[in-house]
Amino acid sequence: MKNSVGREIPEYLEGYGQVKPFEGAFANYGDRCKTTVKLRSKKPGESKLVDTIDEVLDKVGIRDGMTVSFHHHLRNGDFVLNQVMAAIAKRGIKDITVAATGIFPIHEPLVALIKDGTVTGINVNYIAPGPVAKAISKGLLKNPAVLMSHGGRPRAIESGDIHIDVAFIAAPTADSYGNMNGVYGNAACGTLAYAVPDAQYADCVVAVTDNLVPYPACPIEITQDYVDYVVKVDSIGDPNGIVSGTLTVTKDPVGLRIAKLAAEVIEATDYIKDGMSFQTGAGGTSLAVAAEVRKFMKEKNVVGSFAAGGITGYMVDMLKEGLFRTLFDVQCFDFKAIASLRDNETHQWMSGSLYGNPHNRGAVVNNLDVMILGATEIDTDFNVNVVTGSDGVIIGASGGHNDTAAGSKISIVVTNLTKGRLPVVKDKVTTVTTPGETVDVLVTERGIAVNPRRTDLIEKLKETHLPVMLIEELKDLAERLTGKPEPIQVGDQVVAIVEYRDGTVIDVVRKVLD
Amino acid sequence: MKNSVGREIPEYLEGYGQVKPFEGAFANYGDRCKTTVKLRSKKPGESKLVDTIDEVLDKVGIRDGMTVSFHHHLRNGDFVLNQVMAAIAKRGIKDITVAATGIFPIHEPLVALIKDGTVTGINVNYIAPGPVAKAISKGLLKNPAVLMSHGGRPRAIESGDIHIDVAFIAAPTADSYGNMNGVYGNAACGTLAYAVPDAQYADCVVAVTDNLVPYPACPIEITQDYVDYVVKVDSIGDPNGIVSGTLTVTKDPVGLRIAKLAAEVIEATDYIKDGMSFQTGAGGTSLAVAAEVRKFMKEKNVVGSFAAGGITGYMVDMLKEGLFRTLFDVQCFDFKAIASLRDNETHQWMSGSLYGNPHNRGAVVNNLDVMILGATEIDTDFNVNVVTGSDGVIIGASGGHNDTAAGSKISIVVTNLTKGRLPVVKDKVTTVTTPGETVDVLVTERGIAVNPRRTDLIEKLKETHLPVMLIEELKDLAERLTGKPEPIQVGDQVVAIVEYRDGTVIDVVRKVLD
Repeated sequence: MKNSVGREIPEYLEGYGQVKPFEGAFANYGDRCKTTVKLRSKKPGESKLVDTIDEVLDKVGIRDGMTVSFHHHLRNGDFVLNQVMAAIAKRGIKDITVAATGIFPIHEPLVALIKDGTVTGINVNYIAPGPVAKAISKGLLKNPAVLMSHGGRPRAIESGDIHIDVAFIAAPTADSYGNMNGVYGNAACGTLAYAVPDAQYADCVVAVTDNLVPYPACPIEITQDYVDYVVKVDSIGDPNGIVSGTLTVTKDPVGLRIAKLAAEVIEATDYIKDGMSFQTGAGGTSLAVAAEVRKFMKEKNVVGSFAAGGITGYMVDMLKEGLFRTLFDVQCFDFKAIASLRDNETHQWMSGSLYGNPHNRGAVVNNLDVMILGATEIDTDFNVNVVTGSDGVIIGASGGHNDTAAGSKISIVVTNLTKGRLPVVKDKVTTVTTPGETVDVLVTERGIAVNPRRTDLIEKLKETHLPVMLIEELKDLAERLTGKPEPIQVGDQVVAIVEYRDGTVIDVVRKVLD
Repeated sequence: MKNSVGREIPEYLEGYGQVKPFEGAFANYGDRCKTTVKLRSKKPGESKLVDTIDEVLDKVGIRDGMTVSFHHHLRNGDFVLNQVMAAIAKRGIKDITVAATGIFPIHEPLVALIKDGTVTGINVNYIAPGPVAKAISKGLLKNPAVLMSHGGRPRAIESGDIHIDVAFIAAPTADSYGNMNGVYGNAACGTLAYAVPDAQYADCVVAVTDNLVPYPACPIEITQDYVDYVVKVDSIGDPNGIVSGTLTVTKDPVGLRIAKLAAEVIEATDYIKDGMSFQTGAGGTSLAVAAEVRKFMKEKNVVGSFAAGGITGYMVDMLKEGLFRTLFDVQCFDFKAIASLRDNETHQWMSGSLYGNPHNRGAVVNNLDVMILGATEIDTDFNVNVVTGSDGVIIGASGGHNDTAAGSKISIVVTNLTKGRLPVVKDKVTTVTTPGETVDVLVTERGIAVNPRRTDLIEKLKETHLPVMLIEELKDLAERLTGKPEPIQVGDQVVAIVEYRDGTVIDVVRKVLD
């Protein structure tokens, strides 16, 4: 069947089930229901402290077919997923689904577990390019991987679409009764926000810490009433692995030109004003947009309401300068952000659900004015791909991409017109992550295209000097520079399902033929 | 049928349903299930702001038979319950159940609504002596009132035993999208902790505020993802009404003697030590125990882990002196506590469920060492009554009484041996609130009695000069002073059900005959 962005998707997929086709970004609201939660209540006097991960596995009754979950605030420095999965594998347990908020190159050991059938399912909302992404692309995983968004995952957990048997929460600080925070400890990573739905809905919740502090931990981000067991390990992670990616303003002149144009679009469309809210990614060009926006805000003496998302030191600086009253932080990208979350009351953390879940009573993305997005590809319908490279291999998942695009008043994709001799603007993206109806503006170094739905923006930009053109013109320009790329050769096997934030399927990724 | 504290209770009660008899304080643990939550998800762009309470009632579809809920952090200064109930009554709606965490004399207008059938059910975990308590005692309410504990209410909500149709949350500060805190605003009351389960489980959640601040409120205690509507009213309450009760150390020599003895019991039983945790009520004698414990802690250079419960300025002082590392606050009793919660990171709030719910994965009461309790009556089985006066009229509900008694390592009842020419120690208490198996020590001005179950404490106290005697001896002593009181004449009508924290029925209150 075809979904509403014109993608051919199966009605049923082995290892996934019935497919609900994507029907539009705002088609699926209204009455919802959060699922039941099973738990075992703790009597006074019962201890939660367990000596080893292996002993925890006994306590939780680990067995074939279970779903275990992890969060990724330690990013490429995370040791917990590997430790737990190694202990599971050692027992000969098979058919585990790993529900991870993020997967990084450090999780390469998963590849062997995929190959030997220990792991047969993965669902994930952020996946960095690397060995696990490649293994999925090659079709090694028995069931199709489910690629979600940061808001879609909490939605899936709260609705019961994902049932987590055991949540393992890497806790930079924890006490013996399960109170946790991420702001102290050797592996301090800041907020633990993505793990909150896991704590609330898993049948069994395990805090894994290398910094066991006297009761009670303080501050507490995830509270003891959600936690079954606490286990101390030697190390939950390498703090230096937390900081990954660029995280600084680009120095590339092309990136700087794009950023300047994007900020001018924001200014020209009247979004630079008191109370404005803003989110951008941690990439060099995205941060360069923040730098340009910052200039406009200072010029106009504007005080914004909040900046949101994964937080970098750059956003902390803007908070400290008084350019925003608050930060909403779902993930700390660097040490400055971690310290700020720890020390500054106006730097607030938000759970993954509060951040982006479309099916609660209103996520923070709903209050975003301006969202700066990246793209691997964008097509003439403004559909964006951040899931697959132009070779069809998986290089990411939505993260907050389609959440923020849907929620924000203006979503702006900033990207070079071409990358690595390939056009970024195409007739059809390889994989749709974010539907074009939620993408308002494309800014490239060669020109700006506005989604025809946004006649209001087109009117405003008409009065400026900005190089506005049709997206088809940008596509033609890109293709003139690079040539029209050869279509990717894919087989029948669906290796990954791209779930839109509401749980419908917006696209599938098929196995790339060598 | 008889329950395990020997109380005769009906098997079924009209307006309540099947009665689950109390079977012991620790009989009802193990596997539990949290119920589903209905909600309506909010699309980006939808507003939550509503102009009047009346308009909110339209939005939420208020109708006969619904359950509406309120929290009591504004205590005797709360205006919200009355405003909402007046608006409901004006529509001629009938058969409403009021699920309030607390009811105070200011809520007297409820009496007229009980009489005219607007309100036919009440469940409450704290009720101050006054008009509503009297009306219930007189049998005016159609259905028996359900008297709960602070931990029992979240248990009931989370399990689905109480289904809240609409939660009205008095918010000293809120933004237009429903983020709330209680630490700023004209009616700042500190934490909103008791309202957290309501926000999490009600079909519909309304923030009622008189301090609408620009988005986002900061700090946030209850987040927008739980809130459907926000309504601004002129005033949510009188801050001076928050401070009620004694709240200072008693000057009465009898109270001081009791307090000294209680502290000596704590010292002699080795609970004054590093890492100790402590909770006491806000009454004069209870605070006097804190004052005596403070002396011991200073003498021994002890640093405790936490003090918990409703927090007074006295506890804040102990925190500031370094006698405790942290406070766990479920309710601020005075302005000093409110300011401390606002300004001090080690002063942490806890939801009602985190505080005392027996059926989560471990409440804070489970970590309490020492609990100081009051009593209206205590019997020779150590059962305590804080629900009815010796005339059988309702004067309270458990509050945290039976939660903390069950959770703490040593629970000590401090009370005068006689009050108002009536004995406090009796053969049988009028109403059982807290089962004797969870009460360890009784301290009166005339002597100390230890629960025979606690042979460990008896052994330790043997070696001291403390006036330990049998509780039967204290009862005889009391009766010699006051005479044996006449039994109260009660009718058949059950006017209130006393639910133990686990949802079983520990006693019922029958209509007092004039």
